[in-house]
Amino acid sequence: MSKLNTEELASFCKKKGFVFQAGEIYGGLSGFFDFGPLGVELKNNIKRKYWKDFVHKREDVFGQDGSIITNPKVWKASGHIDNFADLILTTTKTKTKLRADHFIEDELKIATDSMNADDINKLIKKHKLKYNGEDFEEVKNFNLMFNTQVGANVTSNSTAYLRPETAQSIFPNFRLVADVSRASLPFGITQIGKAYRNEISPRDFVFRCREFEQIEMEYFFNPNTQCDILTNELKKVKFQFLDAKTQDLGKNTMREITIGDLLKDKSKKFNSYHAYWFAVFFKWFNESIGLDYKNLRVREHTSTELSHYSDATFDIDYNFPMGFKEMFGMANRTDFDLKAHMEHSKTKMEFFDEKTNTKLIPHVIEPTIGVERLMMAIIYDSYKDDKDRGNIVLNIKPSLSPYQVAIFPLMNKEELTKIAKEIHNELIESDIVSFYDKSGSIGKRYARQDEIGTPYCITIDYECIEDGKDKGTITIRDRNSTKQKRIKIEDVSKIISELVKEKINFNKL
Amino acid sequence: MSKLNTEELASFCKKKGFVFQAGEIYGGLSGFFDFGPLGVELKNNIKRKYWKDFVHKREDVFGQDGSIITNPKVWKASGHIDNFADLILTTTKTKTKLRADHFIEDELKIATDSMNADDINKLIKKHKLKYNGEDFEEVKNFNLMFNTQVGANVTSNSTAYLRPETAQSIFPNFRLVADVSRASLPFGITQIGKAYRNEISPRDFVFRCREFEQIEMEYFFNPNTQCDILTNELKKVKFQFLDAKTQDLGKNTMREITIGDLLKDKSKKFNSYHAYWFAVFFKWFNESIGLDYKNLRVREHTSTELSHYSDATFDIDYNFPMGFKEMFGMANRTDFDLKAHMEHSKTKMEFFDEKTNTKLIPHVIEPTIGVERLMMAIIYDSYKDDKDRGNIVLNIKPSLSPYQVAIFPLMNKEELTKIAKEIHNELIESDIVSFYDKSGSIGKRYARQDEIGTPYCITIDYECIEDGKDKGTITIRDRNSTKQKRIKIEDVSKIISELVKEKINFNKL
Repeated sequence: MSKLNTEELASFCKKKGFVFQAGEIYGGLSGFFDFGPLGVELKNNIKRKYWKDFVHKREDVFGQDGSIITNPKVWKASGHIDNFADLILTTTKTKTKLRADHFIEDELKIATDSMNADDINKLIKKHKLKYNGEDFEEVKNFNLMFNTQVGANVTSNSTAYLRPETAQSIFPNFRLVADVSRASLPFGITQIGKAYRNEISPRDFVFRCREFEQIEMEYFFNPNTQCDILTNELKKVKFQFLDAKTQDLGKNTMREITIGDLLKDKSKKFNSYHAYWFAVFFKWFNESIGLDYKNLRVREHTSTELSHYSDATFDIDYNFPMGFKEMFGMANRTDFDLKAHMEHSKTKMEFFDEKTNTKLIPHVIEPTIGVERLMMAIIYDSYKDDKDRGNIVLNIKPSLSPYQVAIFPLMNKEELTKIAKEIHNELIESDIVSFYDKSGSIGKRYARQDEIGTPYCITIDYECIEDGKDKGTITIRDRNSTKQKRIKIEDVSKIISELVKEKINFNKL
Repeated sequence: MSKLNTEELASFCKKKGFVFQAGEIYGGLSGFFDFGPLGVELKNNIKRKYWKDFVHKREDVFGQDGSIITNPKVWKASGHIDNFADLILTTTKTKTKLRADHFIEDELKIATDSMNADDINKLIKKHKLKYNGEDFEEVKNFNLMFNTQVGANVTSNSTAYLRPETAQSIFPNFRLVADVSRASLPFGITQIGKAYRNEISPRDFVFRCREFEQIEMEYFFNPNTQCDILTNELKKVKFQFLDAKTQDLGKNTMREITIGDLLKDKSKKFNSYHAYWFAVFFKWFNESIGLDYKNLRVREHTSTELSHYSDATFDIDYNFPMGFKEMFGMANRTDFDLKAHMEHSKTKMEFFDEKTNTKLIPHVIEPTIGVERLMMAIIYDSYKDDKDRGNIVLNIKPSLSPYQVAIFPLMNKEELTKIAKEIHNELIESDIVSFYDKSGSIGKRYARQDEIGTPYCITIDYECIEDGKDKGTITIRDRNSTKQKRIKIEDVSKIISELVKEKINFNKL
């Protein structure tokens, strides 16, 4: 059921208060976005769910929050100053700049993931490609890091960078965090935060932004050991897969395989830690976040597109309006980063592994989520134009919805609003985000909440206060089925809390 | 009870995993900090508490999350490109740069809040001030905004800025947010996010950073109306006050007054909306955040130090190791910003006030919290070196503590660890941050948790599983009193939850 195109999705997000262009009244700024009242709630819920599931629930993952600007030597060591660049085409006359891979893809309808500067130059020549009638200069590298000057003295040492990935906030702190956390291998350090890339041509709504938020984890392990929390159940996690070879043949044919199958395939550099985290995250996106299985695929990076630090990378792509595109990536960064920082900073990065009684520089598996991409996937995945109902319904997981419940007094009369307010306040005290709405017909109020994904609506009517069998009860309405049930006022908080956590089923109330 | 100096506080924060220098292994970068595993939890708890109390609990405040980099015209309109500067001294030979106000304060031990460039030049001349034997050039303005280039074409139009305040993420969105939220006056828009200032000399640990986080609210109102939620109870909120006149006389004498007193003083530009929010925030810092009343003071800005946009500003200062300094500010920005953006963007910023049936550009009161400053205040305020106990105790409010509870199996035996893990998991499911620790003596484990502010510790001992009156019970220990009680396992989750919300008292268990 294909539904919205990218522009329609952006327009829906603006109308409902999820996403605005940054500085819209000044015409915006390409690649920068603001999140409105609902967008900030959805984003916070995504981040909170991640933090609860991957930090609070686990004993082997520790959180941190590193600064966006840090000592620039970090970027020399990580290789970003030398290698973090896109190929860029410049026209000979107007000096218009285009991202080479996107231009070639659009013009020739071929994949460019594995192309280098030479390949691009040859293609331009062979096909006599022009842009608005102009020829191109030789293709060049353009470093994607934003830079700025720190301090009042402008010197070569005062140039600093806005981090292009949160990962490099983590590696230099490896020892500090491990020590204060009394960590032992294997363990992870994770962070949620903004990152910046000076994209030549930001596009596809919030998909390719210049300012964006990442959830990243660096999971450190001894490569001579096996991951002992990779259960048989996790090995059975299934998904649609697009391997490197198929892509090399220029094909997009997917096949369904399991984590266990991938692990058995000796042609892939896929170790048990990689397998463990891949299974955990795939399940999380599908079951906890609620993304439709058929809109997810796993794609192996081809050897030529691998980042300078990665030994093997597998993405989870989501089927966005513009097709399957990366939402999640997981690289095996080996010991590249810790080694580089050890060399550049002269700080020991070896770690004693109690299990094997050896000292080593750990290897690392890096799961990365693009928060805005995940947010876009959630809205798109849950969007349904319900013709029967006559309105849009966002079927978002209750724990992710901007509001978990909405409270409606049937009429704006004090005997009803008083009860409504009391229920509303009690819910908020119980950390449930409740929205109070007293205006418009009940149908209109239901529709408004359907459109922003509120899973449950509570109506306080006269039956609640009048003598009879329904005295002291209110109506609770389920977004997905539109079914209604009456429940006792004193049970509201507990029932909503369990519904939101999906511990009970609405139909069994 | 004065205790730590700034360096000792920084060293404690590093040791416990609250705050590290950014890029420490490379020698750090002045004015930039990373937050460790405990720091990120404390910061998140502060932000979550604010959001719950000021967004979720209220119907008149809406959240948003604007980008750090936005269309640069925003900064032209707001006046920051022209006015957001510090006075800077440059030495004649080595061209060393110093912040003029700080240099004069250190050298002459006088307040400089009200001085302009002329005053500084005269003082330098009069006192023949030098720096390392060098003379100074004339004092100059230095714009504090970090800038960068957006896009691959470097032109005058490609310069963008890292926002120096979150406020300007809000004003341009005023109409967008008001419309999607169906807001009516008075109402607020709030945001939590990073901001950047290229301070000449960052100092005092996280107090004056170059990258920092702000909580800001813009509360829009009709200046021809009175704030009708300013209750008599709020008017009675009392605090130590340092007014502008006293400062003009070079004195620091405080007097205790109430919000009501301030409001009656016609010499002050202090309206009922300003009064309402001041009372609400002062109470919040004191009662909800738990900062000691005597470590808080309210300071009125003198006329010469007022920002270019402000009609009247009152700060709440906290008594940091280096003395009373700003932690919270509240400016009356009038209609300065909306008018400026209306003029520069040609977008209508008028708003129809249903109460008075008039159209107007609303005025605005702006409460601002420095998140790192508040975090520093919380740690410092709660820090106690308990000689009797032989360890440090952080008396942090339970809802703000990095961990709300710690779970200790008495010994590392499966019959105890199994129960301990079950309790731990149940607590986390109930959104309580629980820390599981099975290593070291119980005394050592208590001490570790005292030092990071964990309010409650639960010990699972053999009485819990052996026949007898204590079967099925565990020990809960209170951080502040070190008292212990036995409670039933099935009540743990409910009791901890109510203790953390301060709905029940430990002594009454």
